[in-house]
Amino acid sequence: MPKVSVGILGATGSVGQKFIELLQQHPWFEITALAASERSAGKRYSDSVTWIQSTPLSPQVAEMQVRACEPDLSCQVLFSGLDSNVAGEIETNFARAGYFVLSNAKNHRWDPDVPLLVPEINSDHLQLLERQRYKGRIVTNPNCSTTGLVVALKPLYDAFGIEAAHVVTMQALSGAGYPGVPSLAIQDNVIPLIPGEEEKVEMEPLKILGSYENGSIRNANLIISAHCNRVAVLDGHTECVSVKLSRKTSEEEIIQAWNNYSAEPQQWKLPSAPAKVVRYLREENAPQPRLHRNLDKGMSVVVGRLRKCALLDYKFVLLSHNTIRGAAGGAILNAELMVKKGIIPQHSELSTQY
Amino acid sequence: MPKVSVGILGATGSVGQKFIELLQQHPWFEITALAASERSAGKRYSDSVTWIQSTPLSPQVAEMQVRACEPDLSCQVLFSGLDSNVAGEIETNFARAGYFVLSNAKNHRWDPDVPLLVPEINSDHLQLLERQRYKGRIVTNPNCSTTGLVVALKPLYDAFGIEAAHVVTMQALSGAGYPGVPSLAIQDNVIPLIPGEEEKVEMEPLKILGSYENGSIRNANLIISAHCNRVAVLDGHTECVSVKLSRKTSEEEIIQAWNNYSAEPQQWKLPSAPAKVVRYLREENAPQPRLHRNLDKGMSVVVGRLRKCALLDYKFVLLSHNTIRGAAGGAILNAELMVKKGIIPQHSELSTQY
Amino acid sequence: MPKVSVGILGATGSVGQKFIELLQQHPWFEITALAASERSAGKRYSDSVTWIQSTPLSPQVAEMQVRACEPDLSCQVLFSGLDSNVAGEIETNFARAGYFVLSNAKNHRWDPDVPLLVPEINSDHLQLLERQRYKGRIVTNPNCSTTGLVVALKPLYDAFGIEAAHVVTMQALSGAGYPGVPSLAIQDNVIPLIPGEEEKVEMEPLKILGSYENGSIRNANLIISAHCNRVAVLDGHTECVSVKLSRKTSEEEIIQAWNNYSAEPQQWKLPSAPAKVVRYLREENAPQPRLHRNLDKGMSVVVGRLRKCALLDYKFVLLSHNTIRGAAGGAILNAELMVKKGIIPQHSELSTQY
Amino acid sequence: MPKVSVGILGATGSVGQKFIELLQQHPWFEITALAASERSAGKRYSDSVTWIQSTPLSPQVAEMQVRACEPDLSCQVLFSGLDSNVAGEIETNFARAGYFVLSNAKNHRWDPDVPLLVPEINSDHLQLLERQRYKGRIVTNPNCSTTGLVVALKPLYDAFGIEAAHVVTMQALSGAGYPGVPSLAIQDNVIPLIPGEEEKVEMEPLKILGSYENGSIRNANLIISAHCNRVAVLDGHTECVSVKLSRKTSEEEIIQAWNNYSAEPQQWKLPSAPAKVVRYLREENAPQPRLHRNLDKGMSVVVGRLRKCALLDYKFVLLSHNTIRGAAGGAILNAELMVKKGIIPQHSELSTQY
Repeated sequence: MPKVSVGILGATGSVGQKFIELLQQHPWFEITALAASERSAGKRYSDSVTWIQSTPLSPQVAEMQVRACEPDLSCQVLFSGLDSNVAGEIETNFARAGYFVLSNAKNHRWDPDVPLLVPEINSDHLQLLERQRYKGRIVTNPNCSTTGLVVALKPLYDAFGIEAAHVVTMQALSGAGYPGVPSLAIQDNVIPLIPGEEEKVEMEPLKILGSYENGSIRNANLIISAHCNRVAVLDGHTECVSVKLSRKTSEEEIIQAWNNYSAEPQQWKLPSAPAKVVRYLREENAPQPRLHRNLDKGMSVVVGRLRKCALLDYKFVLLSHNTIRGAAGGAILNAELMVKKGIIPQHSELSTQY
Repeated sequence: MPKVSVGILGATGSVGQKFIELLQQHPWFEITALAASERSAGKRYSDSVTWIQSTPLSPQVAEMQVRACEPDLSCQVLFSGLDSNVAGEIETNFARAGYFVLSNAKNHRWDPDVPLLVPEINSDHLQLLERQRYKGRIVTNPNCSTTGLVVALKPLYDAFGIEAAHVVTMQALSGAGYPGVPSLAIQDNVIPLIPGEEEKVEMEPLKILGSYENGSIRNANLIISAHCNRVAVLDGHTECVSVKLSRKTSEEEIIQAWNNYSAEPQQWKLPSAPAKVVRYLREENAPQPRLHRNLDKGMSVVVGRLRKCALLDYKFVLLSHNTIRGAAGGAILNAELMVKKGIIPQHSELSTQY
Repeated sequence: MPKVSVGILGATGSVGQKFIELLQQHPWFEITALAASERSAGKRYSDSVTWIQSTPLSPQVAEMQVRACEPDLSCQVLFSGLDSNVAGEIETNFARAGYFVLSNAKNHRWDPDVPLLVPEINSDHLQLLERQRYKGRIVTNPNCSTTGLVVALKPLYDAFGIEAAHVVTMQALSGAGYPGVPSLAIQDNVIPLIPGEEEKVEMEPLKILGSYENGSIRNANLIISAHCNRVAVLDGHTECVSVKLSRKTSEEEIIQAWNNYSAEPQQWKLPSAPAKVVRYLREENAPQPRLHRNLDKGMSVVVGRLRKCALLDYKFVLLSHNTIRGAAGGAILNAELMVKKGIIPQHSELSTQY
Repeated sequence: MPKVSVGILGATGSVGQKFIELLQQHPWFEITALAASERSAGKRYSDSVTWIQSTPLSPQVAEMQVRACEPDLSCQVLFSGLDSNVAGEIETNFARAGYFVLSNAKNHRWDPDVPLLVPEINSDHLQLLERQRYKGRIVTNPNCSTTGLVVALKPLYDAFGIEAAHVVTMQALSGAGYPGVPSLAIQDNVIPLIPGEEEKVEMEPLKILGSYENGSIRNANLIISAHCNRVAVLDGHTECVSVKLSRKTSEEEIIQAWNNYSAEPQQWKLPSAPAKVVRYLREENAPQPRLHRNLDKGMSVVVGRLRKCALLDYKFVLLSHNTIRGAAGGAILNAELMVKKGIIPQHSELSTQY
C-alpha cells in the first residue's frame, strides 16, 4: 500500500519536532515536506532546528530542505504545529488549496464547520467536514490539557452523566514549546498561570462531548472550572479532577467504565491507537509523569487515586503525555482515522466523497 | 529582660534544624538544650546532624551536646520537631514533667484539651489550657498545608462566611523531612499522593476555625476537599483553592478582607509575626514559591490570582513557607504569643495563673 | 535454541531493577530466579519492590517469589546487583556452588583471578577464569564511571598510547541506587564528592587496559587523576577528560580511531552490543545526557568536543549510560560474550572446558 | 556623608537586576538612574522588567523611569550589566562623557589601559587609569568563572607559585542571563559547552595576576586549561581545579595560605568586602552551591576537598556566587575601592587627581 505523503508546518518548533519523531517510522505516512518560518526556509532541516528530542533525527529528514509555509508543498496532508499567532491564516490557505490540514493550533477549533476531534470520543463530528467549503479540509485536535481531561471524562459521561468537573493541572514544560519556559523561571518553582489555558480547558470539552445535530455541534451541558499550573516536569500533564455525576455509582463501576472503554481506533487497531484508551492504575501513588507518561507509546490516558470527594462526588488523578496524546500523536491519530474512513485518500488525488 | 530557655526535641531532623536556624538569633528565646533519638544522644550536635540549611550553624549550637528525649532537660519550653511515630508519648512525658511543649507533630492536635493554635486566628483557644492536667502544657500547630489554607480562609470566613473549599496542593520537598523524598522519585516528576495529608487538610481547619465554648472547641461547619501532591520545589507549598462563600461579594472586597486582616501578633509586633498576615499580590502570575516564600521572613501567607470560579464562587492561589509559617516559625510564634500573654513566664518558674 | 536460565541477586535494588528491565525480553536469557535480602524473601516481587523504571514490570516477573541470596536458586547464571557491603561473600558462595556470577559490585574486581571485563576491550582476560578454583565462575564489570572512561580511552590507547588522563565526572543520580540521593541534597545543587569513586576511576582502567601474561594481568602504565561529582541528572554520567598521548596526532585521527573501533561483540552482533562502541558527535554542544544517553539502547559511549588542551594534549567530553553500559547492560554483555565463547553453556549442565 | 549617585546600564537584564538588588540598601551608593534598551526606555522600571530576584523590588526603584543608554544620565558612576554585543560602544560613550563606568561586560577587559580588577588581587592595576584618555574612566571585572578561580589561585600564586592549572566548571543558570537557558535544554541534563567561556577562563587570570610595570600589565606566566559546563543550579559556579605549584608544599600550608589571605578591602572593611576572601571548609563534601553560595553575602570564594592530584600537585573544589562575587557584587566592590582610594569622588564633581 502506498504511503500517504505528509508535510509538517512549523517543523522546527517543539510540536513540529514531535511530529517528525512520530512520523519518521510511520507505517501509513511518509514525510515529503517540511515548512517553517521565513527564517528557516531554504535551509537544510538539520541546520535550522535545535533538535531537542531524545530520538535521533533520521538522516533523510535531516537532509530535507525547509520550505516556506506556502501552499505549494508536495504532500496531501499537513500536520500543523504552528504557533497560534500565525496558524489561522496559513492553515486556511492550505485548506483552500486542497490540502488536508490536521492542526494542533487553537485558531480553527471553534469554527462551526471544523471538528475538534478526539477519535475515541467524537468521530461522528467528522460529518462537519461536509459543510467546509475549502477544496481541502481542516480538522483540529484539542489543547493538550483538554485532551487528557476529556478522554478521562468521556467513559463517565456516557455511563453516568457528568454535571460538573473541577480540575487543577500541573503541566509539563514541553507544553510551552522551545525555548519556552526559562530555566530560571521554573527551577525550584511552580508558576500558577498559563495564559489562556484555563479558558480552553473549561470550554473545549463542551464541544468535544457535544452532539452532532443537523450539521452542527450542540455543546454538552456541564460546568468545568480549571486552575492551570506549570511545574518542572519535561513531559506529561498531571491533573487533579473532581467530578459531580448525574447518577450515583460506585468506585468499581467507574473503574470498570474506564477499563472497558474502547472505540473505533481500538477496534481498527489504528497504528497510533493505544490498546487501552484509559488505563486505571491501582497503585496508591499513581499515575506519575516520569513513570507512566509513555504507556502505550504515550497515547493512553492514565488514571489513578479514584476516591470520594467531600464536595462533589468523586476525585481522581489523570496523566496524559502532552506532546504525544495531547498534540502530535493526537493529530496523527486523527489523520489515521480519516484515512481509515476514506476521507483522506490513499492515492494522490483528493477524495471528495465524504 | 532575661531570655526564656528553650530546647528542641528532634533537633537533628529537618524541622528541628529549622527551629535552630530561627532560634539562633531570637530576641526572647535562648537555646539551652537539644534532644534527639538515642542514636544521636551523647554526641556533639555538629557530629550528629546532616545540616542542610543554607544559614550556617552557629558555633555555640554546633558544640552543644545532644541529649536523649527525656524530661530532664534544662529549659522551660520545648519545641518538638519529632516524628509522629514517637512524638505522642515523649511530648506527654515532658508536659507531665512541667515543660511547655510546642509541638509540630500531629499526635496531640485532636486532644480535646489541646489548642491547635494559629495566633492570628484562634488565640482564644488557649483557654483550653486550663483544662490540661499536666504540670506543664501542650500546644500544637497545624499541618504545614493546613496552615497556609486556614490563614487565607480566616479573613473570608469572618467577613463572608465559607460553606465549602476545594484545595489542590503542590507541596515542597522539605515537608517530607530529611532524607525524605528520594531524588530519583521526584526529579522530572510529580507524586500525586502524600499519605495522611488530605485528611489533615480537610479536618484541621474545622477545629482551628471552630469556636471556644465552655471549655471545648465546637468545630466550624464547612466542607473541605483536598488533593495533595508533591512537586520538585525545595520550600513553599502552593495551593489552588476554590471557595463557596455564604454571602456574595466582590473580588475587591475579598482582597480588602485579606489586606486588612490583622490580629494580636501584629498589634503586639511579636518577633516572628509578619507585618501582613495575608499578602495579596496583583501580578498575574503570582505567587510563586521561589520568588515569594520568604516574604516577611517566611511568615506571610501570599495570595494571588483571585478570580471567579465556574463551580464554586471564587478561586485563588496561595503560597506558604512550609517549614517556617507551616512548622517551626508557626510554633515559635505560638510560644511568643504565650509569653506575651503571660502563659509562659519570663522567669524560670512555671506560671500557674492562666 | 533453549534460553539460558538466569537469576538476579539484589533484585529489588536499583541495579537489580535495571537487570530485570533489560532481561525481560532478552533473546538468549530467561529470568528464572530473583533473590534479595531477608526482608524481601518470600514475598511476591511486585510486593517487595518500589519499581522506579519507566518500562512497566512484566506480569510474569511481578508474580515471581523473591528468594533469599542462598545458593539454591534454579538458574545457571546470576547477575549481581548487590550492595558491596554484602556482595563479596554471597557471590563467593554462589561461585563455589557452581553458578556463573556476573557481578556489578566492587568486591571481587581486584581478585587476581577475576576478570574486570569490558567485552570490547579485554575479552582475553577471560583466560583468568582458568585459574579460578570455584566450581562456578566470577566475572566483574567495572564501576559505572570507569566504564565510560575506559571505553573512550581504549581506541586512543591502542592507536597512540596514553601517558596520562585527567577526568572530572558529573554523575547521575541513578548511580547512587534507590532511595540514594535525597532530593533535598541535590536539587539546585552539585555534590562534589562520591565516596570511594575517585579511587575506582583512577585504578580500574589500569587493570582493564592491562595485558594478560601467564595467568595474570599486568596493569597498564598510565596515570589517571579523577574528581567525581554528583549532579541532578537521572541517568547518564558526563565526563570531561584531558589526555596526554604517547604519540602526537591530529584531531581527525583521533576521531577516526573512535569511529572505527570495533571488537568481538560487534563482529558477533551480540544482542546487547552497540553498533558503534564509541560514537563521536560533531555538534558543538554534544554529548548531553538527556539527548544521547540512550543511543544504541544505552550501550554506546558517546564522545564530543575534541579539542586541544593547553596542559595535556587533547580534551573531550564523554557520556555513558551509567545503569546500562556502566552496570546492568555491561554485565549482560559480559554474559553474552561468555555464552558466545562457550564458557557459559547453553544447556543446563555446567561447562568445564575453558 | 552624601551618597555617590549611581546608574545601571542594562537595568532590566539579569545582571542589572542583581545590581539593583545589591544597591537598594547600599550605604555609599544611591541609585539615581536606570537605563536599558530602546524597547524599555520611557517606561516605569516595574513595567519593563521581569523581576526574578527573590528580594522584592523597592517601591522607589519600581517607580523610576527607564532611560536610553545615552550619556545624559544624572549620576556619577555607571554599573554596566549590558550584553557584550552592545556594551563596548555604549561604555566608551559614557566614559568619554565623564562617567565612571564599572563594567561587567567582556568588551574592554583586554584594553591595555583598562584594569581587569579584583580588589583583593590587583588593586595596583588601577594605576592604568592614568593612561586612559577618557574624561571619565572604565574599569572592568572578570568573567564570573574567572573570578572564583583567580581568587582561589591568588594566595597560592603568592605563596608557592603556580605553573599550571586545570579547571572544569559546573556553572549556574543565572550566568546565562534571562531568559537564558531554556528549561527544556537543561532539566535532567548537563550542557558541556558555554560558548566563549573557556577562552576567558584560560586567559583572564593571566592579566589579573599580572604585574603593573611602567604603565602596562605584564601577564602572569602560567598555563590554564578549562572545560566549561552548564548544570541545573540556579546560582553558584562550582569548579574542580588541579594545580601544579612552583614550590612543593603541604596541604596544611595551602589551607593556611587561603585562610590567612586578606587585602585592602578587608583591612578597610569596604561595605561589600567579605570577612574572608577565601573560606576553606573541612567538611568532606563541601563546598556545595545551595549550601554555601551565600556565605559572606555571596562575596567569599569557598574552597574544599584539597587533596593530592596524581597528575599535577593538588586538586580542590571551589564555589563562587556567579552573579554576586562574579558579577554585580564584584563590580560594586571595585567601585567601593575606587571611592576609598579617592578615585571616585564623594561629591558631584569629577575627581582628576589619580
